[in-house]
Amino acid sequence: MAVTHPTRDQIQLDNLFAALGNPLRLQVVRELAADGGERRCSSFFPEVAKSTLTHHWRVLREAGLICQRPSGRELLLSLRRDDVEARFPGLLDAVLGAAESESAKDPAAVR
Amino acid sequence: MAVTHPTRDQIQLDNLFAALGNPLRLQVVRELAADGGERRCSSFFPEVAKSTLTHHWRVLREAGLICQRPSGRELLLSLRRDDVEARFPGLLDAVLGAAESESAKDPAAVR
Repeated sequence: MAVTHPTRDQIQLDNLFAALGNPLRLQVVRELAADGGERRCSSFFPEVAKSTLTHHWRVLREAGLICQRPSGRELLLSLRRDDVEARFPGLLDAVLGAAESESAKDPAAVR
Repeated sequence: MAVTHPTRDQIQLDNLFAALGNPLRLQVVRELAADGGERRCSSFFPEVAKSTLTHHWRVLREAGLICQRPSGRELLLSLRRDDVEARFPGLLDAVLGAAESESAKDPAAVR
């Protein structure tokens, strides 16, 4: 299962925002940020169809937000925090802070 | 031409990001932020079809990023900076800063 990732310099702002513009994907970014490491993709959203999740992983990966690393028959996901931070300093923290505040005010808004 | 706008409290993060996830819309937000006031919608992108622009104004308006105010046969656009700032403090500045830095590094990336 070969996957390609954009280099740090290839990360584009409109792709980042488009990837974040979906509650499921925003939630994945928040959880990966909180975890700080790798997570099996099967550990996310067991109620969502695999093909749907595969689409979301692709959008996140192509935006440069996550790294997908094969491990056996699974893929491990991690947030490309350093790359996004290097490309757009402060942006990811602002995004995560806004998501945190929205979630605190209105828990239903973020899944 | 009646248009509706979300209230400040109705502004949702995933809608904001989805609206910003397009280079034309991101550019409009940047220009409105730089201008600081109202602009006729016909002053943007004369090369883009009116129906396409109408779609983009709707996405920006429904996300809570812009206000559209009828004026004669035209619509005046302005950035809802105070509302977005009140809902998500610091986020818009982070977005504008990232767009500025991307544009400076790679002028072709942002139109």
